[in-house]
Amino acid sequence: MKKEYTKLIQGALFTDLYQLTMAQLFFRIGIHENIAQFDYFFRSYPDYGSHQAGYCIFAGLEWLVDWMQESVFGVDELIYLKTVKDRQGSRLFGDDFLGWLSGKSITEGITIRSVEEGRVVHPYVPNLMVEGQLAMAQILESSLLNQINFQTLIATKASRIHEIAQGKLVLEFGLRRAQSLAANAGARAALIGGADFTSNTGMSAALGYPPSGTHGHSMVQAIIALGGNELDAFRAFADVYPNNCILLVDTINTLESGIPNAIKVFEEMKKKGQKPLGIRLDSGDLAFLSIQAAKMLNQAGFPDTTIVLSNQIDELTIWQIITQIQNEADRNGLDAQQLIDRLSYGVGTKMITSSGASALDGVYKLTSIKDKGKWVPTLKISELPEKTLNPGHKSIWRIYDNSGKAISDLIALDDENPAKMKVLQLHHPTDPTKQRAIENNQISSVESLLTDILIDSKIIYQFPSIEQIRNNRKNDLERLYPGVKRLISPHIYHVSLSQKLWELKNRMVKKSLNN
Amino acid sequence: MKKEYTKLIQGALFTDLYQLTMAQLFFRIGIHENIAQFDYFFRSYPDYGSHQAGYCIFAGLEWLVDWMQESVFGVDELIYLKTVKDRQGSRLFGDDFLGWLSGKSITEGITIRSVEEGRVVHPYVPNLMVEGQLAMAQILESSLLNQINFQTLIATKASRIHEIAQGKLVLEFGLRRAQSLAANAGARAALIGGADFTSNTGMSAALGYPPSGTHGHSMVQAIIALGGNELDAFRAFADVYPNNCILLVDTINTLESGIPNAIKVFEEMKKKGQKPLGIRLDSGDLAFLSIQAAKMLNQAGFPDTTIVLSNQIDELTIWQIITQIQNEADRNGLDAQQLIDRLSYGVGTKMITSSGASALDGVYKLTSIKDKGKWVPTLKISELPEKTLNPGHKSIWRIYDNSGKAISDLIALDDENPAKMKVLQLHHPTDPTKQRAIENNQISSVESLLTDILIDSKIIYQFPSIEQIRNNRKNDLERLYPGVKRLISPHIYHVSLSQKLWELKNRMVKKSLNN
Repeated sequence: MKKEYTKLIQGALFTDLYQLTMAQLFFRIGIHENIAQFDYFFRSYPDYGSHQAGYCIFAGLEWLVDWMQESVFGVDELIYLKTVKDRQGSRLFGDDFLGWLSGKSITEGITIRSVEEGRVVHPYVPNLMVEGQLAMAQILESSLLNQINFQTLIATKASRIHEIAQGKLVLEFGLRRAQSLAANAGARAALIGGADFTSNTGMSAALGYPPSGTHGHSMVQAIIALGGNELDAFRAFADVYPNNCILLVDTINTLESGIPNAIKVFEEMKKKGQKPLGIRLDSGDLAFLSIQAAKMLNQAGFPDTTIVLSNQIDELTIWQIITQIQNEADRNGLDAQQLIDRLSYGVGTKMITSSGASALDGVYKLTSIKDKGKWVPTLKISELPEKTLNPGHKSIWRIYDNSGKAISDLIALDDENPAKMKVLQLHHPTDPTKQRAIENNQISSVESLLTDILIDSKIIYQFPSIEQIRNNRKNDLERLYPGVKRLISPHIYHVSLSQKLWELKNRMVKKSLNN
Repeated sequence: MKKEYTKLIQGALFTDLYQLTMAQLFFRIGIHENIAQFDYFFRSYPDYGSHQAGYCIFAGLEWLVDWMQESVFGVDELIYLKTVKDRQGSRLFGDDFLGWLSGKSITEGITIRSVEEGRVVHPYVPNLMVEGQLAMAQILESSLLNQINFQTLIATKASRIHEIAQGKLVLEFGLRRAQSLAANAGARAALIGGADFTSNTGMSAALGYPPSGTHGHSMVQAIIALGGNELDAFRAFADVYPNNCILLVDTINTLESGIPNAIKVFEEMKKKGQKPLGIRLDSGDLAFLSIQAAKMLNQAGFPDTTIVLSNQIDELTIWQIITQIQNEADRNGLDAQQLIDRLSYGVGTKMITSSGASALDGVYKLTSIKDKGKWVPTLKISELPEKTLNPGHKSIWRIYDNSGKAISDLIALDDENPAKMKVLQLHHPTDPTKQRAIENNQISSVESLLTDILIDSKIIYQFPSIEQIRNNRKNDLERLYPGVKRLISPHIYHVSLSQKLWELKNRMVKKSLNN
C-alpha cells in the first residue's frame, strides 16, 4: 500500500463500518452522549490443539492509547465518509452526524481503567473497562479488540516459550512469516511475554532495544558459488564480526563440515585474543545435533560457546529437546544441565503467529449505560450460560493465599471492597452449584487489579518501559501455582463473582426471561 | 506505537538485522555488487489440520513494490544503524558500509519477474524471482517474505471460503480479531481471494471499495437498557437505514423475539414502500436457524430477503451448513437451493488469521550469482531432498491439456522454451523414479507465468485493479480440475522440472556431495 494511504488505513477509519453506522443511529435517536460502560474480556485461554494455555499475559494497552490519541476524525476521514453510499446510492452518513464527529479524537470523553501490561490475566474477567459517551465508546471497539487481542495472544505464547526454555535466551525472529505489519506489534508483544531480543530492526530502534541476528545460508552459498568454501565464509564472518561471531553450521553438512569449520575459525579467533560466541543449528534433529555439537566444541576447548537452535521451534519443541538431552546427555559423557544452560532459541513463525491458536477470542461488551444520571446494567442473555454477560459497573480483584500465590480473580460490583470483607463468597461465573467461602485468615492479600489510564480524554498514566512490563510478567508468574503454568491440560485458575454481583446477575436473567 | 515511529518501523528497517549484517559482510569482501538471483517459493500448501489447500492464490506483490519504492535508507535509518552495538559495545556497522547504503531505496538495481496477483500458484515453483546486487537483494528478503507469504495465505483461505459458498456474498469482517495492522493487508488479500466486501472502513476507502456492515448487539442492548425494547431498536435502525436494513436477530431470542420483531419492522417498511434487505444470525445452529428463519420470512411475505450468517465461520462450517440445508430443507417445505442462494456469510477471525494454518512457509533462496559476467548456480544441499534448491536461472510455465485445464507447472532453465517442444519431459522435483513425457498434441497451450515487474529499479508493470486481480483468480480456478480444489485431501497438482534443469540439479548435487 502506498504511503499516502497510511494515515487513512491506520487512523480513525481503522474500524469496522458498523461501529460508525451504530454511532450515527445513537446520534439520531439522541442517546449518543449517554455515558456507557463497555468491558473487555476474553472467554477462553488459547488452545493450541495438543497444548493449552492456563493463563494469558495482558499486552497492547500502550499502543491502543497511542492510536486513540493520534486518531482524529479529520478532513480526510470526513471527506471519505461523505462518499459512502447505501444500497440505493444515497449517502450513508448525514452532515448532522458527521458534524458531531468532526474533529473528535478517539479519546474524546473516554475513561479507561485497565490491568497493566505484562500482568497475568484470566477469562471472563473484565481486564479493561471503557467508560464514555455511547457513540465514541462504540467506535472504539474494533481497534481496541484488534490491539489487545493480538498482543495478548503473542505475549502469552512468548511467555510459554520463555518458561519452558528455563529462562535461556529466546530470540524473536518471525518477521519473514509474520502477518504483514503485525510483525511490529508481534515483536513488542514477544518481548513483553519473554523473548529477550528481536531481529526486527525497526522495532528494536523504536523500543530502544538491541536488535539480534547473525547470518543465513545465503552468505555461505554466495561465497561458495564465487569460488570459496564454507571455511572462507566463516573466516569472513569472524573477520567482520569478531565480537558477534555466531556461525550457522548447516549449509552443507552440520557434523562433517559446519562444526569442524566453525571450530577451525574459533581456534584462529582464540589466537587473536577474540572470543567466539557460538554456533546456530537450523535443521535436523536439534537435540541430537546439540549433543554432538557440545561434544565437539568441548573437545576443541570451547565449552562456553552458545548453541542457538532454530527451525520451526515452539514450546513443545523446546520441551522435547530439553527432555531428549536430559535422557541422552549422560551416555554421551555430557552434563545435561550444562548443555541445556548453553542453549539459546531462535523462535520465528510459531511465536509471532501463535501457531495452533491464531486469535484470542476477546470481546468488548456494553454492560451498563447511564440513564438520567443513574447506571442501568445491560445484559445480553445467551443460550450458552457462559456467554451471558456480567452486568453492571464492576471492579476486579486478585486473591492471594497465605503462601503468596494467586488463587482466584474476583469480579465484584464497584461499591464492594473485598479487601475489607471477613468472608469472601466466591461464585462460579455460570454454575450456581459451584461456590465457596474463604475467610480472610486464609488470605495474605487482595489486590485491586485496575489502574486508571485515561480519565475523560486525559492520559493520567505513566506508561512503563518494556523492562518494567517484563517485570510485571515475571512477578505474576512467580505468584502462579505451577499447575496453572504447565503446557498441557493446565489446572483451571478460579475466576469468581462476588455475592452481590452474582445476585444482580440472577435477578436480571430472571427479569429478562420473564419479559 | 506513536506515529512518530511509523516511518522507522514500516520503512527500510522493516527487516531482520541479519540481512544488514550479511550485506555489510558482502560489502567488506567486495561481492556486494555481484548480481545475484533469489527465488521466492513456498514448500507446502496450507494444511489446516482437518482440511488442506490444493492450490494457493498469489497476493501481496503490489504492496511489496510500493514498500520497496518508498523505503529508503535515509537520515533516520542511518542515524539508528550507527548506534547499533556488537556484544563488546563497538559499532556493528561501519561508516564505509553505511556510506554505500546511504540514500538507496530498496528498489535500487533490483529486477523482479513474478506471477501476477490473483493467479493460482503451487509449491516449489519460483513464483517470483529477484535479480539484483547481492547486498540489496539480500536486504529485501524479510519484507518480501512477510508481504507475499501473508497475503497469499489469506487470499488462499478466502478463495476456499468463496468456492464453498457457491459464489454467494462473503463479507470480510475480521478486524477485531486480526493481527494488529495486518487487518489491512488481510482485508485486501481476502478481497483478492474471494471476499466481496470488507467491514474495514479505512481499507475500503483506500481501495475504493464500498465497505459493508450493519449493527451489533450493543445497539439493541443500549436501547433496551434505556427503556425501549428490541422492536424499538429495529424500528430505529430501519428508520435511519431504510436502504440498508439488515437486522441482527439474536440479541434476546432468535426465533421467539428477533425474527418476529424483524418481520414486524419489515411489514412497516413495506407499507412505506421501503425494501428490507434481511436478517443476520450470529449464534446457535446456523443451519437449523436458517431453515426456521426462511420459513418465517417466507410465510410473512419476504421470500427475497437475505439471511446473513456469522459466528466463527470458515469453509468447513459453510460446507456443513449447506449440507444440512440440503438434507433438511425438503421436510421443512423449503427448496434447499433457493435457501442456499439467499444466504450470505460474514467471515471474521477464521479467514483473516487463516485459522488452522497461521503461516505460509514461503522462502527466498539464493539460486545463482554472477561471477565475471557468467551465472553460477548455487545450491544448498539438504538432508531432506525436498529442501534442496533448484539451481540456476529459470523460467516457469503452465501446461494446459486439451480440455483447457491446467495439468502441471513446469520449472525450466531460462534458455528453454517448452511452448516449442514436441515432447515435454516432466520430472518430479525430487523423486527420480517419477517422470513422464507429454507430446504436444496432448496439450492445448503452454503459458509463460512470469511477468516483468521491475527492471533495474524501474517499475515497468501497470498494477491491475483489485477487480482485475479477482478476475485472474476466477479464470485460474475455472482452469483447475475440481479434485485440486476440493476442501479435504485435494488431488496433488503436478509441479515438474524440465529435462535440462533436472540434469543440472543432478550434476550439482553429485559435485557437491563429492566435495
